[in-house]
Amino acid sequence: MRAELLTVGSELLNGATINTNAAFLARRLAELGLPCAQQTAVPDRQEDVVTALREALARAELLIITGGLGPTFDDITMAAIAQALGRPLVYRADVAAQIRRFYQRRHRTLRQAALRQAYLPHGARPLANPLGTAPGVWVQDGRRQTARPRSTPRYVVALPGVPREMRAMFDRRVAGRLRKLPGRTASASVTIRTVGLVELHIQQLLRRLRLPSDLQLGLYPDLQAVDVRLTATAPSAPAALRRVERAARRLERALGSAVYGRQERRLEEAVGERLARTRLTIAVAESCTGGLIAARLTDVPGSSRYLRGGLVTYHNDVKRACLGVPAALLARHGAVSAPVARAMARGIRRFADSDIGLAVTGIAGPGGGSAAKPVGLVFLALADRRGVQVRSTRFVGDRAGIRAQAAQMALDWIRRLAAPRR
Amino acid sequence: MRAELLTVGSELLNGATINTNAAFLARRLAELGLPCAQQTAVPDRQEDVVTALREALARAELLIITGGLGPTFDDITMAAIAQALGRPLVYRADVAAQIRRFYQRRHRTLRQAALRQAYLPHGARPLANPLGTAPGVWVQDGRRQTARPRSTPRYVVALPGVPREMRAMFDRRVAGRLRKLPGRTASASVTIRTVGLVELHIQQLLRRLRLPSDLQLGLYPDLQAVDVRLTATAPSAPAALRRVERAARRLERALGSAVYGRQERRLEEAVGERLARTRLTIAVAESCTGGLIAARLTDVPGSSRYLRGGLVTYHNDVKRACLGVPAALLARHGAVSAPVARAMARGIRRFADSDIGLAVTGIAGPGGGSAAKPVGLVFLALADRRGVQVRSTRFVGDRAGIRAQAAQMALDWIRRLAAPRR
Repeated sequence: MRAELLTVGSELLNGATINTNAAFLARRLAELGLPCAQQTAVPDRQEDVVTALREALARAELLIITGGLGPTFDDITMAAIAQALGRPLVYRADVAAQIRRFYQRRHRTLRQAALRQAYLPHGARPLANPLGTAPGVWVQDGRRQTARPRSTPRYVVALPGVPREMRAMFDRRVAGRLRKLPGRTASASVTIRTVGLVELHIQQLLRRLRLPSDLQLGLYPDLQAVDVRLTATAPSAPAALRRVERAARRLERALGSAVYGRQERRLEEAVGERLARTRLTIAVAESCTGGLIAARLTDVPGSSRYLRGGLVTYHNDVKRACLGVPAALLARHGAVSAPVARAMARGIRRFADSDIGLAVTGIAGPGGGSAAKPVGLVFLALADRRGVQVRSTRFVGDRAGIRAQAAQMALDWIRRLAAPRR
Repeated sequence: MRAELLTVGSELLNGATINTNAAFLARRLAELGLPCAQQTAVPDRQEDVVTALREALARAELLIITGGLGPTFDDITMAAIAQALGRPLVYRADVAAQIRRFYQRRHRTLRQAALRQAYLPHGARPLANPLGTAPGVWVQDGRRQTARPRSTPRYVVALPGVPREMRAMFDRRVAGRLRKLPGRTASASVTIRTVGLVELHIQQLLRRLRLPSDLQLGLYPDLQAVDVRLTATAPSAPAALRRVERAARRLERALGSAVYGRQERRLEEAVGERLARTRLTIAVAESCTGGLIAARLTDVPGSSRYLRGGLVTYHNDVKRACLGVPAALLARHGAVSAPVARAMARGIRRFADSDIGLAVTGIAGPGGGSAAKPVGLVFLALADRRGVQVRSTRFVGDRAGIRAQAAQMALDWIRRLAAPRR
């Protein structure tokens, strides 16, 4: 079964938006054993979408379309699908009712134009949007084509262009249906998530391990982290899973404590799980990261079990008043220094009455650097009942990059501190 | 002149790489008045590239190809161009000499495979690679086609897939040649960024404004925000700029205070600029947003001028101890309530000695909701010298979405509060 992707949106064609939807869907399709054979992007013009749809349907049996599903004038995908498949657009009372309910739940007035989204190609199955009003559709087109007779059915799936809506709809409404399609090659993937190792180190390690040569490998480095993706193909899904699982376990053993999880797991989830398991509570005092660490920790449901609180100590007054950092220490060493980081970590632990106190102070830039304390210099300190430890690093990157790397390193430190003793 | 883009690379088709080359080239082509009409991505298989090339050349006069130019087995773009245009591949001694020089300069041993890159389609003009060995090509194909007679010449330009090499080669070797092509239209774009209005409201407003009908309009909604992109074309670049600027000013007047900036400007930058201008300081107490608002405020360089500090009050102890929220109030109304939000805002203002105190408390989910206080219910409170105001909203979405919307609404409230009085 040949699968293709059609992304609709003038913002892609003028370069205003990077096409992340294409990468997400390509990855998901590959995981489902329906590798994407071509990706096409066209602007929000109905005739362009119709032409691209017809060309793609002449080549492929499965076509996923994203974008152009909203309530406004430039949302033309449903009409284009109807036209390309030679079906009328029909008003669906059930979809209209869903849209009304969405507005009611938000206590917003329904504008008539929103009901434009209730018109779907005849015979299409609506896909409810868990995060917005625009429904997607799943259309099966089994009729023979005059130009090119064929008996296998073709499938057209339309999803919204807003990435979070598209992802949620694909994972909740589409993936399960695709798993039931025939003609898939069985494949299985595992993503091993690591923190603190560099790409080249992992590459050397992979070379030494000599994993089976037909296994597909991908290294995806990010700030202070590398994801390693393994994919195996096999005649059956369980066989593919067994093969990839065996390789993944060997690799995980070799990578050791750098591994914090698999697949979509986030570092803050791994941290949270360890804190919850060891029943340790934490509080954070952030200067240069300005709330990033707290925001990541609290993004995990149930984080109130271990996070007592956080303090963004942007002003020295706040460092003094809340954390008891002595004015003399600030004057002698400056706010970005090991002694101040140490005092902040002790202070936040006392202030919030937590088991662990974490503090970050640094120079995120672009201004504020000097020869002695350059942009990117960051001090991290961790206080627990045994005392305080300090680390300093010099990160490279822009303001956002330095902040993100400091937050990542801090979270990893907590994760390792809260590791179960063996 | 119709321009299209063909990106070659299996890493795009399996989602391992996000197609940033497409966005870069689309933007450059639009700036050059050669808007990109379609983007296609295919894997590194010669037959797929040849098919895609032939289809694109049946539609377009200018085709830019990236990827598949290196020395290894999967670099098949030159052979595919030769095949699609019906020309032989020929060994170019001048290109081979360039490749040898590249290796000599870097004191590296030339591998024989590198000379594979010296074979170009007959009649192609090589484009030297300033950062690597793989040359690009510029091919003009002026011959009449048997299937579709035409007299206008067609251009095929092949560039490497490595983003920095591609960008350097495009800017230094290709842009100048494209500027000499006939049939270009000059265009100019403005993105107007708004917060707090829904997409449909903006659409109604656009309809009433009756902007010139040949102006291209795009609406890009995000959480609690909509970007409006206007693009005008004209015979010359200054004329296009004048046209789009006139329309943008009219639209900005109509949108009023919902507009917080243009192009890449972020809401937290707009907030920061207003706080800095009015010399107001702020401090934030965050419960359900858990540091997100502080993290966004501190992402702006120089935010220490107006941000005194932030407090993540995840535990009720912290609300009581630091913000002076009475235990009785917490017991009677619960942490997610208007009276507690009010007390938190007053408390953080006093605690951090700031002009403005902002507080957020809510239920981000997925757990913790009830019939009376459902997931998504958020209270925002703003305290200043005149008193405290409270707002409550019910957001829809997942945990991350609810938190992001609450942060967005809070930042917008500060922006409006710090608006200069007229």
